[in-house]
Formats: sequence, structure tokens, C-alpha cells
Amino acid sequence: MKINGKNWKTIWITDNSQIEVIDQTYLPHKFMIKTFKNIEDVFWGIKNMIVRGAPLIGVTGGYGFALGIKDNQSDENLIKCSNYLKSSRPTAINLSWAIERIYKKIITMNESERFEAAINEAKLIEAEDVQMCSKIGDNGLKVIKEIYERKNYGNDFESKKINILTHCNAGWLATVDWGTALAPIYKAHREKINIHVWVDETRPRNQGASLTSYELQGEGISHSVIVDNAGGYLMQKGMVDMVIVGSDRTTSSGDVCNKIGTYLKALAAHDNNIPFYAALPISTIDWSLEDGVNTIPIEERSHKEVDYMNGLNENGNIQTIRITPLGSQSFNPAFDVTPSKFISGIITEKGICKANKESLKSLYGQLR
Amino acid sequence: MKINGKNWKTIWITDNSQIEVIDQTYLPHKFMIKTFKNIEDVFWGIKNMIVRGAPLIGVTGGYGFALGIKDNQSDENLIKCSNYLKSSRPTAINLSWAIERIYKKIITMNESERFEAAINEAKLIEAEDVQMCSKIGDNGLKVIKEIYERKNYGNDFESKKINILTHCNAGWLATVDWGTALAPIYKAHREKINIHVWVDETRPRNQGASLTSYELQGEGISHSVIVDNAGGYLMQKGMVDMVIVGSDRTTSSGDVCNKIGTYLKALAAHDNNIPFYAALPISTIDWSLEDGVNTIPIEERSHKEVDYMNGLNENGNIQTIRITPLGSQSFNPAFDVTPSKFISGIITEKGICKANKESLKSLYGQLR
Repeated sequence: MKINGKNWKTIWITDNSQIEVIDQTYLPHKFMIKTFKNIEDVFWGIKNMIVRGAPLIGVTGGYGFALGIKDNQSDENLIKCSNYLKSSRPTAINLSWAIERIYKKIITMNESERFEAAINEAKLIEAEDVQMCSKIGDNGLKVIKEIYERKNYGNDFESKKINILTHCNAGWLATVDWGTALAPIYKAHREKINIHVWVDETRPRNQGASLTSYELQGEGISHSVIVDNAGGYLMQKGMVDMVIVGSDRTTSSGDVCNKIGTYLKALAAHDNNIPFYAALPISTIDWSLEDGVNTIPIEERSHKEVDYMNGLNENGNIQTIRITPLGSQSFNPAFDVTPSKFISGIITEKGICKANKESLKSLYGQLR
Repeated sequence: MKINGKNWKTIWITDNSQIEVIDQTYLPHKFMIKTFKNIEDVFWGIKNMIVRGAPLIGVTGGYGFALGIKDNQSDENLIKCSNYLKSSRPTAINLSWAIERIYKKIITMNESERFEAAINEAKLIEAEDVQMCSKIGDNGLKVIKEIYERKNYGNDFESKKINILTHCNAGWLATVDWGTALAPIYKAHREKINIHVWVDETRPRNQGASLTSYELQGEGISHSVIVDNAGGYLMQKGMVDMVIVGSDRTTSSGDVCNKIGTYLKALAAHDNNIPFYAALPISTIDWSLEDGVNTIPIEERSHKEVDYMNGLNENGNIQTIRITPLGSQSFNPAFDVTPSKFISGIITEKGICKANKESLKSLYGQLR
């Protein structure tokens, strides 16, 4: 997608020897490219969140694993590199998944063929991710189009506008390209649908205010950052036509675990009869779980994320300030679960379905 | 209430000649006292939010008006001072109300008696505010006690604990002492009820993270600052026993207009069967309004409140940083309306009632 008029992806490999990524720790204030030349660089980059977002971490890990075995394609080194890189972010399921996939692909090959095959498999993972996000976009576009067409403000472009609220950043910066929840918005914008996006700031890490707004600005899509408190008011006032969010984990009954605060927006959408959609890769569906509220463990993150804030100071440097009083306590759960009854539909790369067991199973059950 | 072990009020007059206030622009990072020696000082202090909170602005305005007429008690100067001071924050209803009250009290007196009478009336307004907040506290305490007693975790103090969530700052720093929504919490703490308070950060101005947490810390009340996104999760998990918020304006049918985001917490409380109370002075009831969502105009404040954040930098100085990308748009509505159907009860200085017209009228209708 575009930044300053130029097309980018979050990651690419040059000469099959070095990986380049957009350094996300400086966004939205500075656009910088970071180069990873070996597996140690990749380990450091994943650990320090130079790249973030489950799909992107997976792709980065895949390339990193390939770089690690370039000069030593022995079984022993494959195992060593695999374990080493997985430990850079042990809870990132996509990271293990991508490394395992490549490992299984190459372990049966002759040593001399392994590096090239690993690079090719990593490229395939990358391409599949782009394809998957694009499909989510195409499917979500249908939902947007339907709601847009139902609106009857006027026939001219300016007065006919769809207002979409989104929470956190499920955009292309979390994937390779397109994103998940934002993919339908990008597709709709390219179809010349007049969109305005309400961007939830998404405290404590501000992924909405910093990354989603940055992405939308790059694509030239009209948007306004709002504090997380404001969405309910906008919905009461008829200023929101639909909500699209992502999902980190989805239960077999359609409960959606997503960034903390998603549940509150779902409640407000429900109270105001506003369609609320989750856009997600099928890979986030955990068929072993049903009741998300009571079974999905919620990560509790550092209180520092609540107590401190990053931003640009008057000298143009990124600075951290403390916003709570010294000595005050903070509590920082990172996700919440939105029960399926508040979800109008689930958008995946394979199609759209209702947020219930029957619908999910009939569409995706066979894909397990 | 206490700061660093010492009792304070937000405002006091010394020798009937100068007003001293806690400078709220430096809180929670620095505790400083500011002195107003004349009406110009008070004008500046109100305009620059050295004092904030409707009740406190009213009391400050009353004293400021008195100082203004000290050396010239003529009719002409009374009118001049009244108009001048009201213009420091034209939308602050309590400011006009306090000045008018004193003006009416003294305009019929001999000129020589006016200054002393004005000071005395300002002192009376101050004392009445303290009394009113204390009564709200006493009445709210009954609600807390009832919910606390109903809980049956165990009989020892540690295991029996009530978790109260509050939004924004309706505490003593917004009044002279006690506060409104926080008054019941202070009273309960003094009754040795084991309380833990979940403090909503309250973006964009962070009054919860900065002022409510500061107040609770001063009183030694256990609390945790949470981002505004987290309350729904806590309620789903049974970690909230009740919610108490303030109100800027209350309709005759019990709709409550309060800081943006209040509505979202009310929805979550409702979805999880958690009592949701508004604690407010009867003066906030606007008997002319019924449907709050559709009739109460909502102030839209500067986008800068969303785009920038204040805090303490590593050198111990208060600093402003930009958190959204340059060029991004923001939208900043300051309040929202919680429909009465989501409110379990309304706590006032005169008692507790249901959030509906009949109940409000039967308790307070005669007081109009």
C-alpha cells in the first residue's frame, strides 16, 4: 500500500541474501527501512518489535530461518536455527508455524538444496499472506457495498458516504500488504466508494492513532482519530454506518478475541443497530474453544504501557513521558472477548458467514 | 481531603484579602499553591484552568467577585466586576450563578457593607458546597454498604472487598472538598470498607489517570488506573461490583450527560448486571429536558486534546508530545449521554432515587 505516494510492502528480500522491513517502532513519526542480514538480526528485530502483527512476524521468521541456514544446511543447524528464532517471541503462533512449515519442507531434501528451498517457501508464505488479505478485502468489500448502497442520502459522491469505525490496527502494517480489517476499506476506496473512517486511538499502545491513521493517510482515505471513549457517542448520533475489527483468536461459536476495548464498541453497535463485523483469516479460528469469555486466556501486559506514552517532542524527536502520578498502580489487560451475539458477521478469505457454530462449520469446517 | 498526609481543600481565603488555590494545571506531577490577590488574578486563574470543575469554579468566582469590589463598592463597579468575571469562562453556569447570588445579596445594602457581605456570602457558597458533597457521600455510602454486605467472599477484611469503577474525575479537586462521585468512596473508606477503585484513564484529558488516581493515592485508597478500553473486560470477568460516575447535566427523565465514554461503561455494566450509579448535585438536573441523547448539545473541543499529550519527562519537567501522525485529522466530542435505562440509580445530596421521571419528581420536583 502507499506511503507518500509510493507503493510499499512491510517486508521484502533482496538478492536472496538480506531482508528489508519497514521499522515500525518509529511509525508514525519517522519512516525508516531496516535491513536484516542474518538470523541474529531477525531475532533482534522480532524481539524488539521492529516488525509486529502475527502474519508479518510469521513471514519475517520464515525468511530469518532461511538466512540462518544459508552457510550451514545440516540437520543440526536447522534444529538450532528453528529453536533459536522461535524463542524471539515464544507466544507468536505464526512465527512457530512459518518456521515449522519451512523446516518440514526442507528436512527431507539434500543439504545443498535446502537454503534455496527455504527461501522459496518463505516467498510462498509471503505471497499467500498477500493473497489471503486481498481475498478478505474482496469479501469485506461486498458487505461495505451493500451497506453503502442501502444508504440513501443523495446520489452525488459527496453526500453519499459510508462511515466505518475500526479499532486498533488490523491493517497492512500488521501483514505484508492489504491487512485484514482494513483490507475491505482499501478495496472499497479503490472502487471509488466514498468512505470516512473513525479511527479508535486504541490505548494503551495507540495502534489506531499511530498506525491505522498513518496507513489511511498514505492511501488518501478520509479519516478522523477519536479517543476510545468517543465511539458510543458517534453511534448514538448516527455517525457510524458499520464497524470492522480484526481478531486475534476466534472460537468455534464465533466469539472474537481482539484488542482490549473491542467489546465496548460491539455493545454500542448493538445498542444502536449498527452492523459489527470481524474480518479475520480462517487460521485465527480455534475450533477447540467455544465460550470465548470464559476460556480464552487474556495476556496481562506491563503497567508501563498505561503509565508512559511515546510521541514526538517539539524538537522532532521521539520521547517518552509519564502520564500517571508516580506511585499510582495500573492494570493492563491486552485483549477482550466480544461474544458472538454482538457480531453481525465474520469476513474471511473464504467468504462471509454468521458468527455462530453452524455457519462457521458449514463454511470452514471442512478446511480443518 | 489528604495529599501527602495533610488535609487540604481546593480553595481558601486568607485575611479576607487573598484567595489561595491548588494549582491544578501541574497535577498530578507537581503540587503547587497559587495566590490570587485581585479580581484580575482570579479572571486569569479561571480562564487558564488553574481551578476546574463546576462547583470549584463557582466558589472561586464568588471570592473573586468579592475581591473585585473591595476598594470600590459602587453599583457601577459591582456590575462591571460581575460582567468581567463571568466572561472568564462564559459557559460555566456555576460561575454566573455564584456571582449573581452574591450580587443580588449585596446590591440592596449600603455600599460600605457590601464587601464584607460579599466575602461572607462566598464563604457560605463554599460551605454549602462542602456540605452538599458530604451529603452525596453519605447517601452513596448506603449504596456501597448494601452491595458490599451482599458480597460473601469471606468474613475477613482482605478477602471481602468491593471493586468500584469510576470514569473521569468527579472528586474533591473538582469541588471544594469530598467531590461528587468520589465522595461515597471516601466515606466508605473511612467506614473501613475494603475498597478497590478501577480508575478509567479518561482520554483525551486524562482526568482519571491524573486527578482521580492522585486523589485516591492521597487518601490511601487502593486503586488501579486502567485504559478506557479495559472496563468491559473487567466487568465480564466479575472484577467490578459497581460503577459510580458524575454528571454534568441530568434530564428530567434521568438521562445523564457526563464525560465522553460514560455511555460505553453503562452498556457494559448493563450487559453484565452490574449496578451503575450517577452521583450528582440536584443543581445538575435540567427539568426542561427529557430525551438527553437528542436534546443535550455536546461540546466539540479542540483536536489538539487528541493529538497531543502532557506528562512528565525524564528530567522531571512537564512536557507535551504529539501522538498522532502530522497531517492526520482528529475529532473530539467532550461528553456523551447515558440513557436512563442503563442507570441503576441516582445519588444526590437529598437521597437516592431511580433514574426516571416519577422517581426524580417525587424526590426533588418540589425543590425546583
